[in-house]
Amino acid sequence: MGQPVKPVKVAPSLLAADFTRLGEEVQEVERAGADLLHFDVMDGVFVPNLSFGPVVCQAVRRVSALPLDVHLMVTKPEVLIEPFAKAGAHRLSVHVEAVTHLHRVLAQIREAGMVPGVALNPLTPLASLDEVWPFVGFILLMTVNPGFGGQSLIPETVGKLGRLARIREQVAPHVELVVDGGVTVDNAPALRQAGADVLVAGTAVFAEADRQRAISLLKGGS
Amino acid sequence: MGQPVKPVKVAPSLLAADFTRLGEEVQEVERAGADLLHFDVMDGVFVPNLSFGPVVCQAVRRVSALPLDVHLMVTKPEVLIEPFAKAGAHRLSVHVEAVTHLHRVLAQIREAGMVPGVALNPLTPLASLDEVWPFVGFILLMTVNPGFGGQSLIPETVGKLGRLARIREQVAPHVELVVDGGVTVDNAPALRQAGADVLVAGTAVFAEADRQRAISLLKGGS
Amino acid sequence: MGQPVKPVKVAPSLLAADFTRLGEEVQEVERAGADLLHFDVMDGVFVPNLSFGPVVCQAVRRVSALPLDVHLMVTKPEVLIEPFAKAGAHRLSVHVEAVTHLHRVLAQIREAGMVPGVALNPLTPLASLDEVWPFVGFILLMTVNPGFGGQSLIPETVGKLGRLARIREQVAPHVELVVDGGVTVDNAPALRQAGADVLVAGTAVFAEADRQRAISLLKGGS
Amino acid sequence: MGQPVKPVKVAPSLLAADFTRLGEEVQEVERAGADLLHFDVMDGVFVPNLSFGPVVCQAVRRVSALPLDVHLMVTKPEVLIEPFAKAGAHRLSVHVEAVTHLHRVLAQIREAGMVPGVALNPLTPLASLDEVWPFVGFILLMTVNPGFGGQSLIPETVGKLGRLARIREQVAPHVELVVDGGVTVDNAPALRQAGADVLVAGTAVFAEADRQRAISLLKGGS
Amino acid sequence: MGQPVKPVKVAPSLLAADFTRLGEEVQEVERAGADLLHFDVMDGVFVPNLSFGPVVCQAVRRVSALPLDVHLMVTKPEVLIEPFAKAGAHRLSVHVEAVTHLHRVLAQIREAGMVPGVALNPLTPLASLDEVWPFVGFILLMTVNPGFGGQSLIPETVGKLGRLARIREQVAPHVELVVDGGVTVDNAPALRQAGADVLVAGTAVFAEADRQRAISLLKGGS
Amino acid sequence: MGQPVKPVKVAPSLLAADFTRLGEEVQEVERAGADLLHFDVMDGVFVPNLSFGPVVCQAVRRVSALPLDVHLMVTKPEVLIEPFAKAGAHRLSVHVEAVTHLHRVLAQIREAGMVPGVALNPLTPLASLDEVWPFVGFILLMTVNPGFGGQSLIPETVGKLGRLARIREQVAPHVELVVDGGVTVDNAPALRQAGADVLVAGTAVFAEADRQRAISLLKGGS
Repeated sequence: MGQPVKPVKVAPSLLAADFTRLGEEVQEVERAGADLLHFDVMDGVFVPNLSFGPVVCQAVRRVSALPLDVHLMVTKPEVLIEPFAKAGAHRLSVHVEAVTHLHRVLAQIREAGMVPGVALNPLTPLASLDEVWPFVGFILLMTVNPGFGGQSLIPETVGKLGRLARIREQVAPHVELVVDGGVTVDNAPALRQAGADVLVAGTAVFAEADRQRAISLLKGGS
Repeated sequence: MGQPVKPVKVAPSLLAADFTRLGEEVQEVERAGADLLHFDVMDGVFVPNLSFGPVVCQAVRRVSALPLDVHLMVTKPEVLIEPFAKAGAHRLSVHVEAVTHLHRVLAQIREAGMVPGVALNPLTPLASLDEVWPFVGFILLMTVNPGFGGQSLIPETVGKLGRLARIREQVAPHVELVVDGGVTVDNAPALRQAGADVLVAGTAVFAEADRQRAISLLKGGS
Repeated sequence: MGQPVKPVKVAPSLLAADFTRLGEEVQEVERAGADLLHFDVMDGVFVPNLSFGPVVCQAVRRVSALPLDVHLMVTKPEVLIEPFAKAGAHRLSVHVEAVTHLHRVLAQIREAGMVPGVALNPLTPLASLDEVWPFVGFILLMTVNPGFGGQSLIPETVGKLGRLARIREQVAPHVELVVDGGVTVDNAPALRQAGADVLVAGTAVFAEADRQRAISLLKGGS
Repeated sequence: MGQPVKPVKVAPSLLAADFTRLGEEVQEVERAGADLLHFDVMDGVFVPNLSFGPVVCQAVRRVSALPLDVHLMVTKPEVLIEPFAKAGAHRLSVHVEAVTHLHRVLAQIREAGMVPGVALNPLTPLASLDEVWPFVGFILLMTVNPGFGGQSLIPETVGKLGRLARIREQVAPHVELVVDGGVTVDNAPALRQAGADVLVAGTAVFAEADRQRAISLLKGGS
Repeated sequence: MGQPVKPVKVAPSLLAADFTRLGEEVQEVERAGADLLHFDVMDGVFVPNLSFGPVVCQAVRRVSALPLDVHLMVTKPEVLIEPFAKAGAHRLSVHVEAVTHLHRVLAQIREAGMVPGVALNPLTPLASLDEVWPFVGFILLMTVNPGFGGQSLIPETVGKLGRLARIREQVAPHVELVVDGGVTVDNAPALRQAGADVLVAGTAVFAEADRQRAISLLKGGS
Repeated sequence: MGQPVKPVKVAPSLLAADFTRLGEEVQEVERAGADLLHFDVMDGVFVPNLSFGPVVCQAVRRVSALPLDVHLMVTKPEVLIEPFAKAGAHRLSVHVEAVTHLHRVLAQIREAGMVPGVALNPLTPLASLDEVWPFVGFILLMTVNPGFGGQSLIPETVGKLGRLARIREQVAPHVELVVDGGVTVDNAPALRQAGADVLVAGTAVFAEADRQRAISLLKGGS
């Protein structure tokens, strides 16, 4: 669009790290320029995989100063708010598809000292967010189906991100847009251009030997 | 009862390990005499905590030769059978309270190459096992409430273990009895005496500086 | 907006009444100018509190001629339609978040002789109502989280009410707008101004010694 | 059996009282010889009716010194433990069919200062109680289907009560047996003979003009 | 055991019939000696397959005089009682694992004019039936996992059938025992010997060219 | 609107056919001009009726060359995708109200070789489709409540169809609009005019003696 693109943050997803030496992995991506650490929390019910919970967050907290960004892909998020707050999480997002009393859950997250966010599945309409904006610090847009492995970014979600960014500009310019799923060095420019503020990246960071370069490329460096 | 007590195995529960350096932790308890590695898998639905899933099992598989003993405290165990088989688990137990088609689930576990087990909550009646014995390699008796933290072993479960052991002797002597929850050096003798074959121990191993001594004491050594 | 504000009705919520002498309480607010009697029906599943059901409605029916306005904060409203019709309810609202077959439930309410309504949680989008208008007599807008105690009106819901009122003017001017949650003498003017037709009030009526004055003030009197 | 029958307590069920003047009703049955006040709490999910919850208990607490005996016919009893404790309940029973982590729930009830009990549906096997006895103060045996109106006592449940009483004598003589459902002056003798310690009675008390005589007859007086 | 074996009934399961000409199929097995027609009703929730419901039963009713034996492998059987009664079913069984208010459901089946039965999964304990016997006309013992295709009879269920038959002799000799799953000409003798009164057979009848001979062999003829 | 109305397809719903001779019924409507065969698959959970599943589809596949159009009114559609693909279905629609991971389910349907569709209940907002269009071959608009018998077309749904058709023209002209529920010769013209591409018709076809004429009239012939 000709306008200068905002700098983007990169949040490596620990799901792709080596779990036998998580402390080293975390410290390495911290040194390599990561802005946040992303936790993909899956419960085997909301999504067909079970990943990890507060016990891992608490361990990572001890070895890194980066903000911990926890994404709850779970059917009962209210149970995990307090445990993740105690485990040192900074940001906590819940899926709009999983929560009936959304205002209450977002308020509980804030009361527990974390920044609340709302996550959307790829085909969930943006209208779901109509009343949500004043109550969140960020929106997490899924660009693959959460919890299903080995997927590429769904191309149509880039357009959705663009529409989301335009709404955001009008109603809540301070709310961050986080993109999660299938992010690569190849599609990162389109995502930044469409309005992403934070890119979550798993293998695109942890599967690379030179993680500093990987993060730099995701941010648009060279 | 005067009769010689069988030697007992010890299965350290990784829930109590340091997750920033899980590889080292695992290798240390392996050297210290652990017989199995126990995975407490919680989903935040069957129990009010979410711990970790196949991704952690897969990592541990790479650094240890010990049999991996996975205990599913989850509401939809059928989703996790194949993932844990691929992650290298040797034994997989499901809760009788969580499964409607128990024969099918146990058969799936066996077909996937693992030893199937059934776990029982503290107040679940032993009659639940009446038809189960031919289809399992072990029974896991919960001696605390699964998924709730900071509990001591419920004393009445020792008597339940004794009754379970007497049934086992008659109907399926080859089936192992695993005890999980609040096991300490102090109550281990009573558990061994009552018929336990395997003691799961978390802080009783990982919170001790001398883990070799901790495991030895649990086994009745000195 | 300069235009004259419509007179508003007041519906005292029995949840705040003295349940040892409900007959007297009801008759007192009836004499004090209440227009409807509001029943907050909670099931402990849709919301984390259980209040009361048809048995209370039936009792109140015998001692008051006021229309009984029943608000179902329950996960299975279809079970309670017939019982509340028999108990003498005039109006029955269900939560859009709790009902899959909404047309059917609204039709059942009408066939049972009651006026059907739809209730919305604070962050539920107004788009949920797009096809609903021809089938209801009223919309109940939650201005706090239903079933959680001790909350103040969420300020952002006043704007939502205004947008709802503007849609209503265009598509269904005869549909009443009911506001429920944290209503006080202080915020009542803004709610009336934004388009409320009915104010549900609990402690704002029952905790006041002079209930006639309380109701009068809510209506904009002095 | 020739042995003297123990005196029985009578617990009038408030479900049958006049809810417009509950305070007077309660005080009248207290004067008439009631030993406890019974609360039938239904959620419209575990059973197809919704009755009342803590708000009614709290009101009754203010006007009567009788022990309040709360029977939770609900699918999520853990949500209501603390509210009923604060509302002044003395005893709280949960259905074995509704609870997965029964030891935990019973312990929570006790920690909240109430006497825990377990309730059984008419066809639930007594084997469900095998491990329960040390953790309860009473067992509540349903002699009709909970939550379905207008039923007579199922005759076969008298035999079940007898078998329950014989088990109780052996394993936990101090545990009370409560009978709930379709109790009348006609079947009370058989229930007392079979081993009941407490008779819950709704219309058998509240539908009678002379409630003192009704209670006396239920107790075996004349 | 030396004692003469009772004659057994055969109930062909329509699941194995040709659905393009169900009328002819049904009439053919009726002429071939079938005693009942068995309907395997699956909902895709209680079991992972969806088969058919009342609409098929109603059609078959018009072309056959045989008793229709409906086996509900569904999670909400109460919804289907009235529809199957109207569709002409004679017998209706529900799974003990699927029903919380079992007495109520069995009574509803009887009130609707059908013979009620209870079905058990292969590993469900016989203790589940302790209070059930007076309320059923038959027990259906699953000898494979319901709803999963292509299974052979689980050998251990023959022993379970024998234990069930011994209990039946003592407590309710009039109650029929139905065996369902993997029945063949080869295992029929053992099932008859163990106490079966009715053999459900799918492919063992419908996949045979000579259905009269197939049914005769199942009954022990030659 | 003056513009020529597109020709409409007619899809007879087998729910209204004679199930004793389904092969003949199907072949008759095929000869009579039917364009697709429609399968109303109900599970007794998402809707209060259970109809039929893959076993019926598979049978029909053998006797007809028409495309099979399967409409899943079920709570767990993901379980039935593969079975219906194997049974020969051409098109498979799922309810937007029943699916959390909609992109994944639609992709699975396509990967299994079928055309995916999305169905909407009468009061479900069209905004639910905002992100769906690129991923479907058709939208199925319910014009009665699914699974409830004996209903007439809800008149307001014709207007909804018109609005849907206008959105379709702009965003995805190739996507077909299917109308299902209460379609008759009388309301077919309005539905065609409003934009329907396919009319599902049950009794309007199968209850007519002259099915050729019935189908012709639905298409606007004479």
